[in-house]
Amino acid sequence: MSAQFILPVKIISGHDCVKDSETEICTFGKKFLIVTGRSSAKKCGALDDVIHALESGKCEYEVFDKIPSNPDIDIVYEGAKAARQAGAEAVIAIGGGSPMDAAKAIALLATQDIARDELFSGCYEEKNLPVICVPTTAGTGSEVTQYSILTNHKAKTKTTLSAPFMFPKLALLDGKYMAGLPERTTVNTAMDAMTHLMESYLSVKAGDITRSLSTVGLEIIGRKLEKLSRFDLSDEDRAELLTASNLGGIVIAQTGTTAVHAMGYSLTYFKEIDHGRANGLLMAEYLRFAEKTAPGPVEKVLKATGFKDVSSFGKFISELLGEREKITSEELKMYSEAAIKAKNIPNSIAVPSEEDLYGIYSAVFSDSSPEG
Amino acid sequence: MSAQFILPVKIISGHDCVKDSETEICTFGKKFLIVTGRSSAKKCGALDDVIHALESGKCEYEVFDKIPSNPDIDIVYEGAKAARQAGAEAVIAIGGGSPMDAAKAIALLATQDIARDELFSGCYEEKNLPVICVPTTAGTGSEVTQYSILTNHKAKTKTTLSAPFMFPKLALLDGKYMAGLPERTTVNTAMDAMTHLMESYLSVKAGDITRSLSTVGLEIIGRKLEKLSRFDLSDEDRAELLTASNLGGIVIAQTGTTAVHAMGYSLTYFKEIDHGRANGLLMAEYLRFAEKTAPGPVEKVLKATGFKDVSSFGKFISELLGEREKITSEELKMYSEAAIKAKNIPNSIAVPSEEDLYGIYSAVFSDSSPEG
Repeated sequence: MSAQFILPVKIISGHDCVKDSETEICTFGKKFLIVTGRSSAKKCGALDDVIHALESGKCEYEVFDKIPSNPDIDIVYEGAKAARQAGAEAVIAIGGGSPMDAAKAIALLATQDIARDELFSGCYEEKNLPVICVPTTAGTGSEVTQYSILTNHKAKTKTTLSAPFMFPKLALLDGKYMAGLPERTTVNTAMDAMTHLMESYLSVKAGDITRSLSTVGLEIIGRKLEKLSRFDLSDEDRAELLTASNLGGIVIAQTGTTAVHAMGYSLTYFKEIDHGRANGLLMAEYLRFAEKTAPGPVEKVLKATGFKDVSSFGKFISELLGEREKITSEELKMYSEAAIKAKNIPNSIAVPSEEDLYGIYSAVFSDSSPEG
Repeated sequence: MSAQFILPVKIISGHDCVKDSETEICTFGKKFLIVTGRSSAKKCGALDDVIHALESGKCEYEVFDKIPSNPDIDIVYEGAKAARQAGAEAVIAIGGGSPMDAAKAIALLATQDIARDELFSGCYEEKNLPVICVPTTAGTGSEVTQYSILTNHKAKTKTTLSAPFMFPKLALLDGKYMAGLPERTTVNTAMDAMTHLMESYLSVKAGDITRSLSTVGLEIIGRKLEKLSRFDLSDEDRAELLTASNLGGIVIAQTGTTAVHAMGYSLTYFKEIDHGRANGLLMAEYLRFAEKTAPGPVEKVLKATGFKDVSSFGKFISELLGEREKITSEELKMYSEAAIKAKNIPNSIAVPSEEDLYGIYSAVFSDSSPEG
């Protein structure tokens, strides 16, 4: 079987790389739409740095700062309208996965009219505005993926908009924006990065390059887990976690995610469990399932992360994430029904049945769950 | 300091991935120029596989099979003429570094008239034909770099033609083409890959991603060294060496090479010492020099490759490469004078003076050299 690797994103990382990015950014035009959430990009200094770079390059910009967590279809249509009104030649996303994913859809919709019903069909022209990403959390890796994951109220889950031309053109990584992130966000986003790296390693599409990058990313996360649990992170730790998150994005851009992400979406949609936390809670039980048929690869991801077996990993992550939500069997059955239909389920080297998914969900969330 | 990573090449690897590449290749046009050497692409089956893919896609092609080792400027102008005459919309390179490097220059010259004197000046338009690369040796990594390294008789060395738009669009890696390579070619190309990985790690431009990939590549090479010395390589070993070589290309595309490559070029130009062998012979003495100021990174590259210190590494490589050429002090002085002017010298984390270069050359090649 062939492995593919494609990464048409220029990645620049380092202290003040955003502030100093005038030349890089201004190759994309003279008018920009900045897409961000309500406040975090302002608080962490990233918006100021982007504006500094744009003003140094004598570029114009408008700020569209309305992206909520888990953005839905309505908001990206609204953003596309703003991009057209601003005459934007490129879109700059600042934030976590939500603004970056929204920005990719906005960049697509700004160049062409696509009916809401057609958005996930792939029936559109291969054109969009260039997207520049400035991540302010270390989890999503969206700055280097072709995915725009949007809340789809019709399907009652998240749906992925994806095309090779949708990769951002430029990713600017400065760890300093993460310095003020609260503990819960820091932990949950690290879980998101960790599950990207693990799921990619355990994907049928993994190859030598992706497995190497996953391993390096997991080694970084593994070295930071104790510090994460004490919430005692230096600027350098933050920058390294951003690297791990970026590596997670690079590898899922190649392989996609697998069963864990498929299962996590219902938890976020119906129970508002944070995306990274949802995946983190599910990971150990999925590994326990996967090691039955793929013990070698499971051992490798555990070893890279610094654990000798699933139990010790599950125990650590369980303590890190604190008391887990309780969910009824009926709800978990419904989530299993939804998750088994997800496109990323057959992407796992150990493919679960609907019953297996229910077993994993139950082990984590039901009142009578055995300890992980 | 900021680190950059850019890799706008789609990489597909796996058994028969060239033969089955009709869809991938034919997105680039209907008429192709195949650029290759006189015989190896035919012997190893790569040319047949490319032609199979092209014919499956009902594409036309011409074969330009005149690329010698260390191609010079004349041959790429001749190739460009052939591309124009064929009405080629894309160029497919099959072979080692020589055809791939030549193909990149041919793809540039096919779209615009550039005077011979201007070829290395960078004064040309950002346009070329798309380049598709099929490596048939595991050493150069040229399939994923923006570099076209040509013999420059005027400068009496090799000169690099390089621009971000010169990256190949597609790299197709099938290890089976390496099965019949002779021992010397296999060893020398492995040395080329190894030095790319080491030099990149020891470049001032190395970052987290490149160092990770270098480490993985060096671990692969390290695991194969004993087998290389016995010339006892399975198909899987060959495929893994191709991965290592590809990783070497990916990292030098980001960081460039350093002092070792700068020094190697004179050995190839004046003494016709194979490029990979030249670098391999110099590597240990450069590491000995570099560890004085950068002991940490030198230790890391040695450890990744499976050696505890420079001496044990030098001894192994020395035995692997066999008796070294003897070169007079006068010649080595002249090479040092040339190498110190190379652009990649200041790219090293341990920057040598002209005297240092002479010391390294002498330790390797002069009659009175101390044992490496």
